[in-house]
This record gives sequence, C-alpha cells and structure tokens, in this order.
Amino acid sequence: MIGAGFMGAAHSQGWRVAPSFFDLNGPVEMALLVGRDPEKTAAAAEQWGWAESGVDWRAAIAREDIDIVDIVTPGDSHAEIALAALAAGKHVLCEKPLANTVAEAAEMTRAAERAEAAGVRSMVGFTYRRVPAVALARELVRAGRIGTVRQVRASYLQDWLTEESDPLAWRLQREHAGSGALGDIGAHAIDLAQYITGDQIEGVSGTLQTIVPERPLTAGGSHYGPVTVDDLALFTARFGPGYLGSFEATRFATGRKNSLRIEIAGSRGALSFDLESLNELGLYDSTEPATEQGFKRIMVTDPGHPYLEAWWPAGHLLGYEHGFSHQARDLVLAIRAGENPAPSFAEGLRVQRVLTAVEESADNGSAWTTV
Amino acid sequence: MIGAGFMGAAHSQGWRVAPSFFDLNGPVEMALLVGRDPEKTAAAAEQWGWAESGVDWRAAIAREDIDIVDIVTPGDSHAEIALAALAAGKHVLCEKPLANTVAEAAEMTRAAERAEAAGVRSMVGFTYRRVPAVALARELVRAGRIGTVRQVRASYLQDWLTEESDPLAWRLQREHAGSGALGDIGAHAIDLAQYITGDQIEGVSGTLQTIVPERPLTAGGSHYGPVTVDDLALFTARFGPGYLGSFEATRFATGRKNSLRIEIAGSRGALSFDLESLNELGLYDSTEPATEQGFKRIMVTDPGHPYLEAWWPAGHLLGYEHGFSHQARDLVLAIRAGENPAPSFAEGLRVQRVLTAVEESADNGSAWTTV
Amino acid sequence: MIGAGFMGAAHSQGWRVAPSFFDLNGPVEMALLVGRDPEKTAAAAEQWGWAESGVDWRAAIAREDIDIVDIVTPGDSHAEIALAALAAGKHVLCEKPLANTVAEAAEMTRAAERAEAAGVRSMVGFTYRRVPAVALARELVRAGRIGTVRQVRASYLQDWLTEESDPLAWRLQREHAGSGALGDIGAHAIDLAQYITGDQIEGVSGTLQTIVPERPLTAGGSHYGPVTVDDLALFTARFGPGYLGSFEATRFATGRKNSLRIEIAGSRGALSFDLESLNELGLYDSTEPATEQGFKRIMVTDPGHPYLEAWWPAGHLLGYEHGFSHQARDLVLAIRAGENPAPSFAEGLRVQRVLTAVEESADNGSAWTTV
Amino acid sequence: MIGAGFMGAAHSQGWRVAPSFFDLNGPVEMALLVGRDPEKTAAAAEQWGWAESGVDWRAAIAREDIDIVDIVTPGDSHAEIALAALAAGKHVLCEKPLANTVAEAAEMTRAAERAEAAGVRSMVGFTYRRVPAVALARELVRAGRIGTVRQVRASYLQDWLTEESDPLAWRLQREHAGSGALGDIGAHAIDLAQYITGDQIEGVSGTLQTIVPERPLTAGGSHYGPVTVDDLALFTARFGPGYLGSFEATRFATGRKNSLRIEIAGSRGALSFDLESLNELGLYDSTEPATEQGFKRIMVTDPGHPYLEAWWPAGHLLGYEHGFSHQARDLVLAIRAGENPAPSFAEGLRVQRVLTAVEESADNGSAWTTV
Repeated sequence: MIGAGFMGAAHSQGWRVAPSFFDLNGPVEMALLVGRDPEKTAAAAEQWGWAESGVDWRAAIAREDIDIVDIVTPGDSHAEIALAALAAGKHVLCEKPLANTVAEAAEMTRAAERAEAAGVRSMVGFTYRRVPAVALARELVRAGRIGTVRQVRASYLQDWLTEESDPLAWRLQREHAGSGALGDIGAHAIDLAQYITGDQIEGVSGTLQTIVPERPLTAGGSHYGPVTVDDLALFTARFGPGYLGSFEATRFATGRKNSLRIEIAGSRGALSFDLESLNELGLYDSTEPATEQGFKRIMVTDPGHPYLEAWWPAGHLLGYEHGFSHQARDLVLAIRAGENPAPSFAEGLRVQRVLTAVEESADNGSAWTTV
Repeated sequence: MIGAGFMGAAHSQGWRVAPSFFDLNGPVEMALLVGRDPEKTAAAAEQWGWAESGVDWRAAIAREDIDIVDIVTPGDSHAEIALAALAAGKHVLCEKPLANTVAEAAEMTRAAERAEAAGVRSMVGFTYRRVPAVALARELVRAGRIGTVRQVRASYLQDWLTEESDPLAWRLQREHAGSGALGDIGAHAIDLAQYITGDQIEGVSGTLQTIVPERPLTAGGSHYGPVTVDDLALFTARFGPGYLGSFEATRFATGRKNSLRIEIAGSRGALSFDLESLNELGLYDSTEPATEQGFKRIMVTDPGHPYLEAWWPAGHLLGYEHGFSHQARDLVLAIRAGENPAPSFAEGLRVQRVLTAVEESADNGSAWTTV
Repeated sequence: MIGAGFMGAAHSQGWRVAPSFFDLNGPVEMALLVGRDPEKTAAAAEQWGWAESGVDWRAAIAREDIDIVDIVTPGDSHAEIALAALAAGKHVLCEKPLANTVAEAAEMTRAAERAEAAGVRSMVGFTYRRVPAVALARELVRAGRIGTVRQVRASYLQDWLTEESDPLAWRLQREHAGSGALGDIGAHAIDLAQYITGDQIEGVSGTLQTIVPERPLTAGGSHYGPVTVDDLALFTARFGPGYLGSFEATRFATGRKNSLRIEIAGSRGALSFDLESLNELGLYDSTEPATEQGFKRIMVTDPGHPYLEAWWPAGHLLGYEHGFSHQARDLVLAIRAGENPAPSFAEGLRVQRVLTAVEESADNGSAWTTV
Repeated sequence: MIGAGFMGAAHSQGWRVAPSFFDLNGPVEMALLVGRDPEKTAAAAEQWGWAESGVDWRAAIAREDIDIVDIVTPGDSHAEIALAALAAGKHVLCEKPLANTVAEAAEMTRAAERAEAAGVRSMVGFTYRRVPAVALARELVRAGRIGTVRQVRASYLQDWLTEESDPLAWRLQREHAGSGALGDIGAHAIDLAQYITGDQIEGVSGTLQTIVPERPLTAGGSHYGPVTVDDLALFTARFGPGYLGSFEATRFATGRKNSLRIEIAGSRGALSFDLESLNELGLYDSTEPATEQGFKRIMVTDPGHPYLEAWWPAGHLLGYEHGFSHQARDLVLAIRAGENPAPSFAEGLRVQRVLTAVEESADNGSAWTTV
C-alpha cells in the first residue's frame, strides 16, 4: 500500500480485518507500506500490521512478491503511480478521486483497459458503495421495488470549515486539492446516485461558492491567503433516462458532521439513506394500501443483507471502516475469480467528467452543460 | 369571504376559532360567504358559520357593514376582486399566489400602497409564517442565535401526482393554474426562506420538468391531454447578502405528503424545520462545547412560544389549520392598531418575481437570471 | 356543559367545530355553560360560543330544552351531577376520571345501565381514543395485522413538576385530586392499552413514589406542606389472555412534555405510538421478508384513516383538540342512532378498579393484586 | 483466550484491533486460543489471529508466557476456569454473567480480591460500558449536567424468539442457561443503569413470564419440550438514594433487534440512549430558557468524546465490536498501570444478586425483595 495518512489507516484496517470475517478463497498478506518519512512509515507499518515499510514506491511496484498495489496518496500522484503499477502487471486499487484532472483519469482508464487484457484488475475506491444499506438500496432498485426512478435528491453535508479563523489547509488550495467540497465529497454523492439507480448523469447546471474567501495562513496568524476552491457546490443533473436530480456538497452545513443523504423517488416507491445512520435504510412502498403506507426504517443488520452474513447477529451495528473490509473482500474475490471488480477506472473517469461539467457550468453562469 | 373551496374551509375555521382563543380587541363577525352556486354556498355558509351567503362578490364589496374582504378564489380572479375591494375601502386578505402574473400582482401592489394612505390594510395569505415553529425560527435568526446565515436548503415535497393514470386536473393546465409545483408549493418555500432569514432572493438558476407529460382527460378514460405545467422545479438562489440556497418543489416525492423543509446554516448554529412535524424545530448551537453539540428537537408548544399563550399546556400539539386562526388574529389586530399587516402585497409580488425568474432561467438553459 | 376550566375550553372547541366538519344527522346547539362565578362564566360562554351561562347546574339539568349534559368539573363532583342528569333523562358525557372513588363510579355505572333502558346514553371522556392514529391501531389489531398480542409497554411521561420550588397545587393533595400521576395520566395509558388490544387488565403489581415530598404552600413562600399523592407510578399488569404489560405514569420525566407512548408486540407484528407525534403510527410486519422488515412511520392523515375524511388533504396535521370534535361527533351520532357510545361508564369504572388495585398493591409491598 | 463461539470472535477482534488504534504502553500478543474441538479451534485461531490453538485450558493457564486469561466460555464453566487462572497468578477477563449462581460469583469475587493483593487484576466483560455514548452519559451525570437523578427507565428489547416454531435451543433451558432474557440481556440493562448513575440497586419487585411455554425439540420436529427460562422480565428497582427505575428484558419485542434503551431523568436535565443508534446520545438541559429546551441528539463521534481520539474524524460511526477494542485497551492499560480495571468481579456479583432478587420476587407474587 502506498500512502500513510488517514485513508491509509482505514485501508489498512480493511485489509487486516477482511480475512478474519470473510472467506477470501486463500490467504492475503499485508506485505509493504510505502510512505514519505522512513521512521513514521515504519511506525505506521508496525501499528497497522504491514510486514515491511519503505519510501520508494517504484521499488515496491518492481517487487515480484507483490500482487496488489493500493494507492492512498493525494490525488495529484494517483496517475503516475497507477500507470506504473498497471504497466508492471499489478492489480490496482486507487482511492478516489481517480485523478485531479480528466486528462489523467482518461489516461489511467485506457491503461486499465489495456491491462485488463492481460488479466490485470483495477478498481477505484468509492467505498460507500459497500455500506450494506447502500448495496441493499441498489438491489431494491434493480428488483423494481420502487418502480421507475422519477427523481433523485443527493447531498453530502459536513461542517468542519464553519470556523472562519481556521487556517488555510492544503485542501482549500486548488493547486493541491484540485477542487473543494465538489470533488472531495460531492464525488461520493454522484457515485452513489449513479450506482443505486444504475443510470448515468448526462448533463448538469451548477453553482459553486467560496463562503469564506480568505483564511489565516497559520492558526491564529495575522497573514491571510485566498481560499481557491469551492466551499459549497449546488447542481442539478439530468440522468440518462431523462429524470432530474438535485445535488449539494458543502463543508458549511452547521451541525451535519458526515451526512451523505440520498433520496430516490420512483413510480412505485422510494428510498432514503443517511450516512449518519448508516445501518438504516428507508423504504416506502406506494403499492401498499393507502392507509398502511409509510417510510419503513429497515435496520440493515440482518444476516440476509449484503455483507452481513459475515458479521454479528441482527441489530448489532457496523461502523465506518467496515466498508473497507468489504472493499478488500470484493477486490480479492474478483481477482481470484478472474473478473473485473467495480467500480472500474472508467466509472471513476465518468465521475470526474461530471465534476468538470459542474465547474464549467458554474464558470458559465450556471448554463446547462453536457457531460 | 369570497370563495368556497378547500381553502375556504380553512379560512372559515380560522375566522371562527380565532376569537375564542385570542383577544382581538373587539368582536369579529362572519358576515357573508360568496360563492358561485347559490345552494352550495348557502350550505357552506351554514356549515362554516357565516351569517349570510350570496353569489355576487361586487354586491358584497358594496356593503357598508363589511370591513374585511377575504379572497380565496382561484388565482386568476384575485386581481379583479382585490382591486375592487381596495377601491371600495375594504381591508383585503388575499390568498397566495397574489395573482397569476407579475403584471397583475404589480398592479395590486400599487393599489394596496395607495389604499394604505387611507388606512386600508392588505395582506397576502402565506399562512405557514404563522406556524409557531416558523415564527420561532425567525425570532432566533433575528436574535443572532445562528450567527450570519451561510446557506439555505428548502424543499416542498408532495406525492399526490405519482399515479400516472390520474386524470388531467385543472391544476395541471397552465391556462388555469398559471404554473405547477413551482407556483403552488414552491412559492411557500420561497416565502418562508425569505421570511426566516429576513433576506431577499436576487438571482436564480432553475430547471423545470413535467415528469408525466400527458394524462387521461377523465378518470379511466382513453383520451389523453398534455400536462402544461411543471411537476418538479429545482433551482438555486442567491440572497441579498450573497449566500446561496437550494430549492425544490415537487409533487412526485413518493412518500412525502406535505413535507416543507427548511434548513438554515449559520456561522454560529443552524435551524431545521419540516411541516410534517410542524410542532418541532431543530436548533444547533455551534458555540456550545464540541462534545455537547447536537441538533435539539424543540417542542414548540411552550406558552412562551409564538401564539402558544392562547392554546394548550406544553406538549399539546397544534395542527394545520391553527395557522389560519393566527392569520386572522394578526390581521385584525393590525387593522385595529392602524398598522400594516405582513406579508404585504409587495412581498407577494416579490415572490411572484422570483417564480417568474425561475421560469425564465429554465426556458434559457438554466442560465443565471436576476430577479 | 358544566365546568369552565381548561377542559371546558377543549370540550367547547369540540362542540363548536364538530358540526362544521362532520355530518351529525342534524343540528347541535350549544345551549348553556354552567360555572361557579357568574361573571367569569358569562365571559367564557361568550368566548366559547355558548348561548347562555349560569351558575346552577341543578336548574340546567331541569331544563327541557337540554338533551346532553357534558360534565367537565373536578372529579369529586362527577357522581352527584351525573346521577342527577341521568335521573332527569339527560344523555351524559362525563370527563375522566369517572369519579374519585370506585364506590361512586360503581353507582354511576348502575345508574347509566338503568337509564339505558329508557334510551338515555352515557359516555366517559377518554378522548385519546379519538386520535386517528390510536383508532387506526385498534383497527389493525382487530384485523389481525400484528397477530396475537404478546406484550404491551405503556407510559405517560410529563415533566411539569420537576421544579422543587413550585408550590403545592390542589392536584398534589389527595383530598382534592384523589391520586397523582397514576389517576391523572396513568388512567389514559390504561384505557388506551385496553382499547387498542381489546383486552382487560386483570391483575397488577405496582409501586408509587412521591419524589418531592413537600412543597411551599405558596409560590416563593417559606411554609411547606406535604405532597400527598404519587409523583410516579410504575406497575406491571396481566391482561385477560395472560400476557403482561408494563406501565409508567410520571410528572418527573424531564424533557417529556406530553409523551403518552404505547408499544404493542404481537406474534406477527408490532405497533408504536407517541402522543408527542400524534399524527404518526409505527407499524412493524414480521411476515414480510426478513431483509425488508422495519418499523413503518405511517402519517395518519390519509382520507381513508379514521375521522380523516372530514379534515384536510393527506399530510396536513391534526392537533390536540381535534379529539374533542371526534368525541362530540361520536356521541351525537350514537344518540341519534339509538346506540350506546363508547367508552361506557362501565369502562370508566373498570379503569378506576385498575387504579385502585395498583394503589393496594403499592400499599402492600408491590404484591400481586387482582383487579 | 478460552472459548471459541460468537463472543470469541468479538473478543478476538478487540484484541487484534486495539493495538492498531490505541497506545497500550507496549505490545500485546495473541498467544493461544483454547476450544473444545482441535480442528475447529485451530481454524478459528488462524482466522482470528491467535498464534497457537489448543483444547486444554488447564495447560494454557500453566504456561508462563501467558499473562492474561480471557474467558468467553458458557457461564457454567466461568467459576472453575477463573479460580484456577487467578490461583495461577493470571490476570482474568471474564465474560458476563460472572457465573450462573450467586454462590459461584461470590467465590470468584473473594478469589479476585485475594489475588489483587499480589497485583493480579480481574475484570468482568460488561462491554456496553465502553460504547462512547454510554461513557459520555456517565461523565455527564458525574459532572452534574442532569442534576440529581430522579428516575430511570431501562429496557433491553430483542425479538429473535417471536417465531413459535423455532426449536428449543440451549438458551431456553434453565440447566444450561441459568436464566432467560433476565440474565442474558437484563443484566446489561442493570449494569448500565448502575454504571451511568453511579448508584446501586437495593430492592426490586419483579414478574417473569415464559411467553411460548414449549417448543419443538428440533427444527420442524413434532416432539416438544418445555421452555424453562423466562422470555420476558419486568421489574421495578429502588436505587440507593431512593429513586425508582423500571426495567424490562424481552426477546419478544417484535421489530426491536438489539434495542438497549436507557433514559435517566434528573432535576436539571435528562439523558436518553438506544443501542440501535449507538453513536448518539440524547441530552436535555432544563436550565436553558423554556423556549429553547429540547432533547439534543449528540453524535458521539467527536475526537473529544471518550475513546474517539483513536478513531475517525467527527461523524464517522463506530459499530458493535469497537467496544471490545475499548475493553482490551482499558484492561491492558490498568494492568500496566498497576490499577484495578472496572467492572470488578464484585460489580459482576452485585448484578447477579439483583438478578436473583428479581427471580425471588417473581416466585413470591412480585413482593418487594431486598437485594
């Protein structure tokens, strides 16, 4: 695994825990953790259960005893590492966003498609697909339980930027982060909406805003610098079959810590999900008698629910990091079965294109823009 | 009162009940109900407590013993009646929307402003302002409890059109209804957002959609006609101080019966309201210690809350029609105090202008449009 | 109507509003309000819509033009008035509790049964039966939607006594109030549990507690007197078929304003209700597929729900006092149809017997006590 | 670790994960897993990360390289193993219930107290104390945030026995399970109530019921045997300071999967917790202005909350098994600090005594019984 930040901890937990709960058709070894600082990386490897540590990702990719490269570095290095890993015949798991630009993401996608011919697999890390309630939502849509989709409402609400005196972190600078709330969390909302409905976004009209335009360069400092990414992204999207969806990504939703909400209304029912209650799914069935209709709060903890056969009895909750175990499981099983895991790089590219179209629309007076 | 439909029942209930619970500084008499059909109107007058009934609204306006004219007819007759009533020196309460066109609404507003010089009062019926939780929300914003407003999320979700085989009602035809979900329920979301924040919408980017484009002309019939209004309206708005809001009005939100939701995020806190739980207000205070922050569910039933001094002990809920009693109270007290009631016709006109700007934007590829 | 306190306002509202929304098979006239103080009663009659006022309830009962006597005085005068009214051939609606003692309630029940032979009807005012969600709950149990009842959980939680310095009101003195939380609000929990399940409580084990044993005689005063009723009542009950229920009545549930909660678990499903969200009913159906089971939040505002055909479109909420309109409707229709309204005095007596059994058990070390 | 069932998986996860997220002042090695079946135990050891496996717990206790013995066997073997382990100078973690009888639990407690003199530590596994929201609740009570405790409402609701045709599992037989819902899940409710309030239960009045009295001996079989434990336990408890609590433990609460609910009302506020939403805590503060009071939903995921400094950013949920990591952390840190971990065997014994008092009361017509 390459990268040793917060997402590195989450991925490591996924790799460590998955084999204890799921049958992966064989063992999985956590060979090598690559970071920048030798000492810190060694400590992290020790803490998270990696056999070795290093600072040279090119050397790591060259090793014959390594089969899978898991990339959890910042987005601006994804392309270089992933292209090298694919060229070396390694299966690749790349954290989202696939890249900071569409051009890079497109190149990665082409490389992934070429590599596939040689049996090399690649996957992008939209982990929230592996929340059981989300996977159940997709199954219900596919099974026709809500009929034809009529509209979508998706938002990803956080509030960690509400304090104006907080300093100008790298995530607030375009040259490092690529984009703001839109790319960081809006990408998840886009991916989930497309995943659950099974449809693609084909056009958008968007508006971006930087709510706090400048911040101190250091905590408590008196020198200020400009915030060059969006704090808030609002856009309307048209999906392939023609229906509309509203999207919001914000880091200024005071009081909402990690609220990724999706509501999907169909001709026969509706679904409702909120990541702040990730073990629950709301289901409405409008084919029931009118006097018995209502949103049902399904505790998605039954052994019959997706991924739940491996965990605890009904009613025992899963948490944030379980999605990373599910991701590790799905990737390993796909590789061993000789199948393509999902989401593919092409799907990651598709999300990038939507993000870019939103930015174009915002730059163009919110004019409707084709993806 | 002129008009005898569903809204007539609600207004009548307001007029009948208000004097029993509030001190109105004098008696209020329900003199005359005017409708189209003499027999039906007489029966309605009997049922709802009006002393007399009639079918000639011009004669009603001419009567010297009538002080207030309450207009609850369809929108296309508002202008004519209101102009005549104001000219006759009657105080006017006009149900929303003020009119079906901006031109008419503007004329009514000018008439109201002229009449005001003679002590004649006028008011438009955005009743939801009188839900105690909404009034409390406005008070809290004014008192600075959530700091500076940063963003708004407003939606009005209904689902009574989800059945495709339901016939082509007059509300689905532009010539009669003016607009669809946008004007019918979106207008409420706009008014509440402006009312609670105290700020005006100055620009919009919108998208409208007719989800079911044609419907049977009669229930079960095989002849179809086109739906000529929107089923779904999505738009982004910029308020005077520069912050953004997202708006949605839909009659296709399967499972949502009457869910007018407003969330307002500020620099020091946030508010959350849903008309389906109209006795509750969510309040988040981000100045509390981090480990004790959370959305608080305030039961807005305390005698200290707006309008509640007149009703029941804490914890005893109010319902939909209480807003009409509060409206009657506020109008009568304002007239008797020689003050202008709110919302004024000018405020109603302002909402019309926003609606029109949304339609223009939608016709123009969602391009940003000034109100 | 005899009695002019808080409950008088609620009953008056019921009588005034019911004829506007329900077809009562004929007119209803609000003839006479009887109170203690002539001036205050006259003002109340004016405010609430009664034609006349008076201070002599015996004279009222003697009037030939009065058909129904509605008793909303304190419990210690119920028996005398009701017995006289029944003897005079008047239909009687008596607010709960039927009386302060079982002996009185039993005498009233015998009188009601005798009067019934002459076509005179009587009813006790457990109004919460008329909350649409409660009526729906009963219908669902009867229809077998939750199978055989296995257990009941009922509590009535209020918090208006939490402040120790609040003075010793008459409700806290046994000689005036009869009992405390048990009789005042626990009686509602008992009635609803029996009403929804259709079964009778046959035995109890209970514990009572006075949490704040003495209070100032006057607000802010330094002289204290003893609280001689219970602040908190906890008991376990066995219903006729053998299943158990847990009950709680308290005025010290800090933060709960008027939370009457009932949960009923059956062999095929479950129901959940809370008076603080009185327009909603929770329904769980355990015959659904395991992966789709969940508590459904039914908005009990559909025209097909009990009493709702008379009110507003789906999603428009009812409030506390609507139950009084429903009560007036049911009583008038039963009288006009020559049928016995429910709940009968016998049902009111049954609740009194349960209350008495709880007190006996509490006095006897919580020993199991037959009703 | 001795024992390889469902709880063995949970404990193993705790031991494996704790060192990756918490600083334990040194390494922790998972030395040996002891089970009954050699092959299954070896497979479990491999799966869960234990270095070795075995079937002889006496041999395990004799090993010098083992410092901590974690007992997750059924309750009837706890005493024998724990006494031997303590005698051998091993620190002991014993899953709840401490034993199946008070006599055994008392003997274990004496042994633990003797061993303590030699620096040997012991702890009983009431893991739910380590849910962050529960730990926060205790902190808030201690800090006086809800004032003096006035009453407690605790229930543990499950529904996995609602199907009458399910077979007679060992948990339904007194000789194997000791007791039913009371000891299995009611024990958790008792421990949490005592833990959060800091007070002891001193008297009880209880009622037990076996709802389905006989079940097929095998799935689908036609031979039936008696259920000899309780399905439902209801009891009232008096805590040391004199206040009352209501308790319920049931496996027949249709629709409730794992709902351990605690509500605590105090003189200045209240707390509310439900294990089905384990990342949330409800807090009510009755010292706020009356118009701003309400139950606050605190997302207990802030880095400042108990245990949360080790996990994810605010808003990222924890699940069921995180409590086992917290338990492992607390035990190891206490041992290394030379301090007694909590809950002690004496606390486990105390819970046993409460359970026994409830059974005595139930056998004695619910008569009040001193613990």
